[in-house]
Amino acid sequence: MPRLDLTASAADLTRAICDIPSVSDDETALADAIFDAVSALPHLEVHRDGDTIVARTNLGRAQRVAIAGHLDTVPINDNLPTRDIDVDGEAFLWGRGTVDMKAGVAVQLKLAAELVSPRVDLTWLWYDHEEVEASRSGLTRLAQTRPDLFAADFAILGEPSGGEVEGGCNGTLRAIVRTRGARAHSARSWMGQNAIHAAAPILARLADYRAAEVPVEGLVYREGLNAVRISGGVAGNVIPDLCEIEVNYRFAPSRDAAEAERHVREVFEGFEVEITDLAEGARPGLDAALAQEFVAAVGAVPRAKYGWTDVARFSALGVPAVNYGPGDPMLAHHDQERVPVAEIVAVERGLRAWLTSH
Amino acid sequence: MPRLDLTASAADLTRAICDIPSVSDDETALADAIFDAVSALPHLEVHRDGDTIVARTNLGRAQRVAIAGHLDTVPINDNLPTRDIDVDGEAFLWGRGTVDMKAGVAVQLKLAAELVSPRVDLTWLWYDHEEVEASRSGLTRLAQTRPDLFAADFAILGEPSGGEVEGGCNGTLRAIVRTRGARAHSARSWMGQNAIHAAAPILARLADYRAAEVPVEGLVYREGLNAVRISGGVAGNVIPDLCEIEVNYRFAPSRDAAEAERHVREVFEGFEVEITDLAEGARPGLDAALAQEFVAAVGAVPRAKYGWTDVARFSALGVPAVNYGPGDPMLAHHDQERVPVAEIVAVERGLRAWLTSH
Repeated sequence: MPRLDLTASAADLTRAICDIPSVSDDETALADAIFDAVSALPHLEVHRDGDTIVARTNLGRAQRVAIAGHLDTVPINDNLPTRDIDVDGEAFLWGRGTVDMKAGVAVQLKLAAELVSPRVDLTWLWYDHEEVEASRSGLTRLAQTRPDLFAADFAILGEPSGGEVEGGCNGTLRAIVRTRGARAHSARSWMGQNAIHAAAPILARLADYRAAEVPVEGLVYREGLNAVRISGGVAGNVIPDLCEIEVNYRFAPSRDAAEAERHVREVFEGFEVEITDLAEGARPGLDAALAQEFVAAVGAVPRAKYGWTDVARFSALGVPAVNYGPGDPMLAHHDQERVPVAEIVAVERGLRAWLTSH
Repeated sequence: MPRLDLTASAADLTRAICDIPSVSDDETALADAIFDAVSALPHLEVHRDGDTIVARTNLGRAQRVAIAGHLDTVPINDNLPTRDIDVDGEAFLWGRGTVDMKAGVAVQLKLAAELVSPRVDLTWLWYDHEEVEASRSGLTRLAQTRPDLFAADFAILGEPSGGEVEGGCNGTLRAIVRTRGARAHSARSWMGQNAIHAAAPILARLADYRAAEVPVEGLVYREGLNAVRISGGVAGNVIPDLCEIEVNYRFAPSRDAAEAERHVREVFEGFEVEITDLAEGARPGLDAALAQEFVAAVGAVPRAKYGWTDVARFSALGVPAVNYGPGDPMLAHHDQERVPVAEIVAVERGLRAWLTSH
């Protein structure tokens, strides 16, 4: 089993854990290495549930902060092992997982080992299956079996945010908008009803849709309503009797699930709408005292997070949560995924400064 | 090998050849049985090319008529063996191939055996692979290797026409109309360009399209322009960069291929159009003297054929051709495919009356 040296630099540790591939469903080798390394640290109480590992200090501090990161990546596409590269004179670590989100995990592992006496009690969470259906996530499982381990006054997700603090996140809704018709031979099309033609107003409404920009607790959340898939048709000589358009609505955290659904049903009024996936966003939570101290300590200007992340899971449990991690989120899942080494160092410094200040 | 009794009734012969399954690619058993049966007839000169069989009289008549039918069917779907059924008091033969087009072939086989001295010389053609790409059709092959066998003054295709005479056929064109965009994460949709939304005007033009009704030599051909398939999308969280709509244009036989293509490109002006399939129709050819005699003899009122059939192949070789066969074309390829026994008898009588009149 590979051994991890948690006293190495965060960049070296990033390289080491990226080079232990951990595509969703295949996180065990990395989880084993982490479990082994943190179990050796006497200041941490360590739990393991499948490939999710929780390590906690129990210093009797007045407050507790949860800091979390997922271990899995999207599939490798010829982008491992990692490489050191130089882009316009800036040093990067290149390869799958460097951005999403092993640099963040490496910083967490290093600080988990180093900070034996932080200003708040800490709960470190490293979990499996973030890049797949939410129902398979290690956090979903743990929230059911050990909700007590989520107890915290504030949470930080190490998702890539370019070293900035990204507050909250948009919610996401997926729906199938459907038209139906009647099949006929295309040589006698007037005997049928063309379901694809019937979808014309759906696409027109999508094309004309103007997404809102919604201020929530001082941050502005930009929404979006988009077709992500369309399908219809039986054969080259048959009038199609079904057309399905999958739409994805990203909605500001000030709207709840019911409001998001109502909005989508209104936009597609007159058509069959089936909601297939719905997750509320998270308010930025930056009015919490700990959050304000955190933002001040790391010297960041908070901005809104658009993509859904597990901050929403903490938020739903009443724990204000933000994203703070190295790496450009636009490069997550990218074949040229790469993280600036200086950003890894900056996030490490920011977290250390806050967690050790008094 | 099953033996065919060409002196049986046309209905019994239909049943016998339907119960020798002959889905495209699997016509050999039926072709063998037919070759065996017609080879025993001294008044016919028989050729075989793969699973296509040609049987000709050589009586020195002033005129020659080609009468053709295909041997293959679309796939069986729990609808063989054949059954005798009764619908509202009318006797039907039910099962795959009864309509498209073994009842027509059975009538042809019976008359090929019986008519030793018809009023015109006859060329009977039974061929393979009609239900698949035109390039694989036995007629395509034969037209290249033995064009002399197509020589005729008039041709009759036994395709189902409900016992009526259906003249000519519409042409058919298929094209892909394409929109392109730029991928982005759907949480930041404004970074991309949605190709599915961009297809809105294409569907609107299709929905608004009013198909022409075009008179050609006394028959009216109804056209049609339809989407038959649509596809687009990458994943549930990605703005799609491509949307493809397959359209099928059925056009009157007065338009040639270039005119059909020009029309489709005009309708979708401003969009990428790729023509993927294009076959001209056939003029009804009912002004030919033999055609007029035929229509009078069988006592039918000619109407336009909408679906493309091999009449177009004869028409392209300068041979006027019509469809005349038992069975409702709406039931072709249907799982409840069934032919009225009385229609088999009527078509047999019609053909016999004309071919033996003087």
